Amino acid sequence: MTSSAHKSYQSLIALAKEHAVLSSCVEVLYWDADTFMPRGGVQHRGAQLAALAGLVHEFHTSPKVADLLAAVEGSDLVRDPESPEAVNIRELSRQHRLQSRLPRSLVEEKARLTTVAQQVWAEAKEENDYARFQPVLDQVIAVSRAEGSALAGPGGDAYDAHLGQWEPGATAAELTAVFSQLCAELRPILNAITASRKRPRTAVLKREYNVEKQKMFVQSVAATLGFDLTCGRIDVGVHPTCIYVGPGDVRITNRYSERDFSRGFFCALHETGHGLYDQGLSQESFGTPMGDAPSLGMHEGQARMWENFVGRSLAFWKHFHGRLREVFPEAVGEVKLESFHAAVNRVESTLTRPESDEVTYNLHVAIRFELERALISGALSTRDLPGAWKDAYKRELGIEPANDSEGCLQDGHWAAGMFGYFPTYTLGNIYAAQLYAAARAALPGLDESFAEGDFSPLVGWLRENVYRHGHRWTSAELIRRVTGSGPDHRALIEHLRGRYGPVYGF
Amino acid sequence: MTSSAHKSYQSLIALAKEHAVLSSCVEVLYWDADTFMPRGGVQHRGAQLAALAGLVHEFHTSPKVADLLAAVEGSDLVRDPESPEAVNIRELSRQHRLQSRLPRSLVEEKARLTTVAQQVWAEAKEENDYARFQPVLDQVIAVSRAEGSALAGPGGDAYDAHLGQWEPGATAAELTAVFSQLCAELRPILNAITASRKRPRTAVLKREYNVEKQKMFVQSVAATLGFDLTCGRIDVGVHPTCIYVGPGDVRITNRYSERDFSRGFFCALHETGHGLYDQGLSQESFGTPMGDAPSLGMHEGQARMWENFVGRSLAFWKHFHGRLREVFPEAVGEVKLESFHAAVNRVESTLTRPESDEVTYNLHVAIRFELERALISGALSTRDLPGAWKDAYKRELGIEPANDSEGCLQDGHWAAGMFGYFPTYTLGNIYAAQLYAAARAALPGLDESFAEGDFSPLVGWLRENVYRHGHRWTSAELIRRVTGSGPDHRALIEHLRGRYGPVYGF
Repeated sequence: MTSSAHKSYQSLIALAKEHAVLSSCVEVLYWDADTFMPRGGVQHRGAQLAALAGLVHEFHTSPKVADLLAAVEGSDLVRDPESPEAVNIRELSRQHRLQSRLPRSLVEEKARLTTVAQQVWAEAKEENDYARFQPVLDQVIAVSRAEGSALAGPGGDAYDAHLGQWEPGATAAELTAVFSQLCAELRPILNAITASRKRPRTAVLKREYNVEKQKMFVQSVAATLGFDLTCGRIDVGVHPTCIYVGPGDVRITNRYSERDFSRGFFCALHETGHGLYDQGLSQESFGTPMGDAPSLGMHEGQARMWENFVGRSLAFWKHFHGRLREVFPEAVGEVKLESFHAAVNRVESTLTRPESDEVTYNLHVAIRFELERALISGALSTRDLPGAWKDAYKRELGIEPANDSEGCLQDGHWAAGMFGYFPTYTLGNIYAAQLYAAARAALPGLDESFAEGDFSPLVGWLRENVYRHGHRWTSAELIRRVTGSGPDHRALIEHLRGRYGPVYGF
Repeated sequence: MTSSAHKSYQSLIALAKEHAVLSSCVEVLYWDADTFMPRGGVQHRGAQLAALAGLVHEFHTSPKVADLLAAVEGSDLVRDPESPEAVNIRELSRQHRLQSRLPRSLVEEKARLTTVAQQVWAEAKEENDYARFQPVLDQVIAVSRAEGSALAGPGGDAYDAHLGQWEPGATAAELTAVFSQLCAELRPILNAITASRKRPRTAVLKREYNVEKQKMFVQSVAATLGFDLTCGRIDVGVHPTCIYVGPGDVRITNRYSERDFSRGFFCALHETGHGLYDQGLSQESFGTPMGDAPSLGMHEGQARMWENFVGRSLAFWKHFHGRLREVFPEAVGEVKLESFHAAVNRVESTLTRPESDEVTYNLHVAIRFELERALISGALSTRDLPGAWKDAYKRELGIEPANDSEGCLQDGHWAAGMFGYFPTYTLGNIYAAQLYAAARAALPGLDESFAEGDFSPLVGWLRENVYRHGHRWTSAELIRRVTGSGPDHRALIEHLRGRYGPVYGF
């Protein structure tokens, strides 16, 4: 009995790995589309991605997989729910159930459509031409709505179904509660900051930073943090991202502005956090849930931890400030460590999410969470999106975009059909705060190590407590195990008070 | 009956196109491996390519394809052998027959093995360490021998089977005859050149040419010739190549030396010739034989035509010499057109094939043709390859490589399992000479157009006579139709005499 279950399990894992290899070709095609693909190739790229999406879908929904799952489920092999076998079966089964609800034609159509939609979006953003994007967005919403409904099944909620793809187990209702508590506590912090007469000067960040030198600096920082450049790359891409092609191949893309150091640098740190996680996942388990992150929120948490908790800390800059001065003597040469550190911790309402500070970031996310639910439910039409976006920014952040490029065209997620993705950013902040507090408690000399340029204690702790576990638990359960309590926004609020109280005197 | 044949035909073409899209993902992965893939990613890349190769093979050998072919073959639809339908059926049927002889496991194994072998080869070449490459080469030869035997079938010849993959219909026996005639007529030309006291000075080509400027110059030349950069790219890669990803996406890679202008420039021209052909193939027919070249020899012919027949002509440099002087005033500013033109037409025995001149090039190819037949038949062991290579160079070109990097490690074809590929280079030269002579006869003012920077008459003629026909005929038949006689080395000899006689005074 067990022996037969064992055989089935091995066949299933072999099959899963085989299809993960195929699926990973998609990652190369995405990366290429973002970096080097000639414009003329976009239609063909859509066809390629559609073909691969169809094949990957075929695996997830194949009767063979169903049979193999059935042969293992309930067997002794999966009795211990934390064993790799049980974890893999639990998650492969969940994926099989969900994917079987999607017709292959829909999967292929979405891949084709969103490839083209992303190009249209990029052009529309560049030319500040929302009208050009709107009809394509309508198509993407229609196909995403159909996808969400199919995934949700009868009586289920389409938006929740999308959300669950990125953050298994999460629901919009639950997250609405989290957001409302979090925002309620963020507002007084933001108000105190706005009212404060203290205001770090950021002119140093807006000086001239040669882009080639920025790239080199980013490479060397990423390497110092532990990102292995023989098994990864950092390139210029349209949107900053990190793509896990497969074992030995993790690719970061980033963008740079010559007169805005933070913009490029903190995005790069963010993606490096993703990259460290991907490189830390079990390579032997590649293609199985044990070799995968439990959720996007957890992945995002890793990125936010390095970007903000580490990357905006004084200890971090104690080490890197000197190197930065050497690379950019004209911009930073005369600027003291403390002033530079204060500059990268300036809090200010801005129009764009990726460059926003830690305090306002979650308000940007809350706006998108609200708008995308309305787009999927149909309560908001794409015609009214630009206005709704402006209203929300005015209400939440007190500022209004001058045009759609810095308004509702700023992010490419919707063009990619990635609904339910945004809220995982805030979950990531929450997870990061909890995990970072636990790491600091466990590793007393952390700041001293950072100041000496040694980031291995934190990477080691994350490897031990997060990376190596893959999808052993849900993200919520992982947080509970590592920190002793479930996901909770209070660690984040505490962190923000602790960091910005002294700077702004509240 | 015809209507049912028509339906089957349409299903077959849809299937072929679908699988061509999948197969084209392989091209992106190759391109990426050659340009940007981190070293650590090579094992995973091998797994990706193996998975895709297996799927593509599955298509070619599927019973569904066999049934559809059977339903169309012999029907009215394919009565006219030159109709697109007949051409597509003829070639899909041939591919089906051949691919059905290969077990899928062998196809996957070869894809996996050669991906890794190419990396080992590149490292061995860099470090001049043949011993490191030899065991991998043994493995590649073993799998290629098995592949050749399977393709050839009982009693067939393994090497001929490889050759036929690249040049349908060609046999080693036939090509041996061609090579022996060609080489017999090349030797007196080479002897006359070697004996001549005239010797164009090439110092101008060895001055300092900033690599970034070379890249820009190459881009602008390619665009002038007609290569569409919105539907293609030119990047730096380990080996110069041209990859046809799909409609709207043709990618050239090239390499540059700061102190060797010809090396980078003529390779780039060569790849541009490939690129013009790929961009000139029927996009609607992509994924079917009507949208594909009839053979590698024909493709190579296009490349060699632009590299040598056009690119080393005085008319070409009448136009580009001025631009080159502007870009590299220090290197070329004082050098007259005639001296520059003479420099790029210097004939000299060199150790490396891609940079060799038009006269000696075919001797390089003849050496490889001889050695690879012996490797596949087993008459030559890999242990003896470096010595056999040296002996052949001494015999044919009177020079001997100082080490294996410039000897038997110089080309990556064998690492890639591409046996039978080299002789198509010489076929390409033969085809190019015949086609170019026909084009000149048909287009009297060609040199004047070139001198004015207008290359569209030649591109137009090639589109009309070659590109648009795809695989309508075999290469030999296409040559016959366009030039009035079958493939024949005499046009090449005539071209060489015509060009080098005046330069070297014979």
